[in-house]
Amino acid sequence: MLGRTYPGQDCSAARTLELVGERWTLLIVRDAIFRGFTRYSELQRSLPIAPNILARRLERLVAEGIFDNGGAAKTGEHSEYRLTDKGRDLAKVVIALTAWGDKWIEPGPIEYFHEECGGPVKQQLICSTCGVVRDASAIAVRRPAPRSARRPRRALSR
Amino acid sequence: MLGRTYPGQDCSAARTLELVGERWTLLIVRDAIFRGFTRYSELQRSLPIAPNILARRLERLVAEGIFDNGGAAKTGEHSEYRLTDKGRDLAKVVIALTAWGDKWIEPGPIEYFHEECGGPVKQQLICSTCGVVRDASAIAVRRPAPRSARRPRRALSR
Repeated sequence: MLGRTYPGQDCSAARTLELVGERWTLLIVRDAIFRGFTRYSELQRSLPIAPNILARRLERLVAEGIFDNGGAAKTGEHSEYRLTDKGRDLAKVVIALTAWGDKWIEPGPIEYFHEECGGPVKQQLICSTCGVVRDASAIAVRRPAPRSARRPRRALSR
Repeated sequence: MLGRTYPGQDCSAARTLELVGERWTLLIVRDAIFRGFTRYSELQRSLPIAPNILARRLERLVAEGIFDNGGAAKTGEHSEYRLTDKGRDLAKVVIALTAWGDKWIEPGPIEYFHEECGGPVKQQLICSTCGVVRDASAIAVRRPAPRSARRPRRALSR
């Protein structure tokens, strides 16, 4: 499975891409989160993906705990896939991708809004010390603990 | 080029993935943003990618205005790639991927901080009407203008 892993990249962004970076995966998740699709057949109608690819993506998303299919062994026309909390939390990734596309490629047509009050929802970067960070170029990275002091983790290149 | 486009998906998230969704692309951008790499040779040392794939990714990122290579025609060991504002703004996507991986796979080792004050930087979803949105499941989508009222856009399946 070398094709979807990022060997040597000790980084949560790379680890996330290992789970959801395959072609179509984030659009499957998008349709589940924001269109409420739970059935294989709904996703099949919404996305022009070969059935075997869609089935494979869904099986992997179940294996990674992003969808729950109730333990069903096989994917069929009526198979059901419910987002877990882990899956639903990918909303933030989808919203970040949308915001960038809205700004740099073409705006719309989708807007995110808060169901409770109807207000528009935007992604912001917040500095815990001084508030909103307007300029992403003011952000840097650090590695707080030395690598050796952290607990061992699974190899990335499995 | 069907392999990297998402035909029929009228959605900024899909359009963003068409530009940066290919394998390794977001990690190239991550290294440019947060490690400050500008040279082909630095990226080559940092990422275990075949040279032809790295060159192809960089050429596409230049063509899409994410990097500026000063108009150089060819990629070589000393080629230089400077992030544009468009490229630097992908920081928000990388931070969203990191935040999800930190929460759901394994925390660390990278932390983002605000260079001006040293405070930790986090991604938040803000409702313009009522403030911070803590639960992503309270977010829904709408299409404010009917499709026909919007200006025509380029075909996605080019």
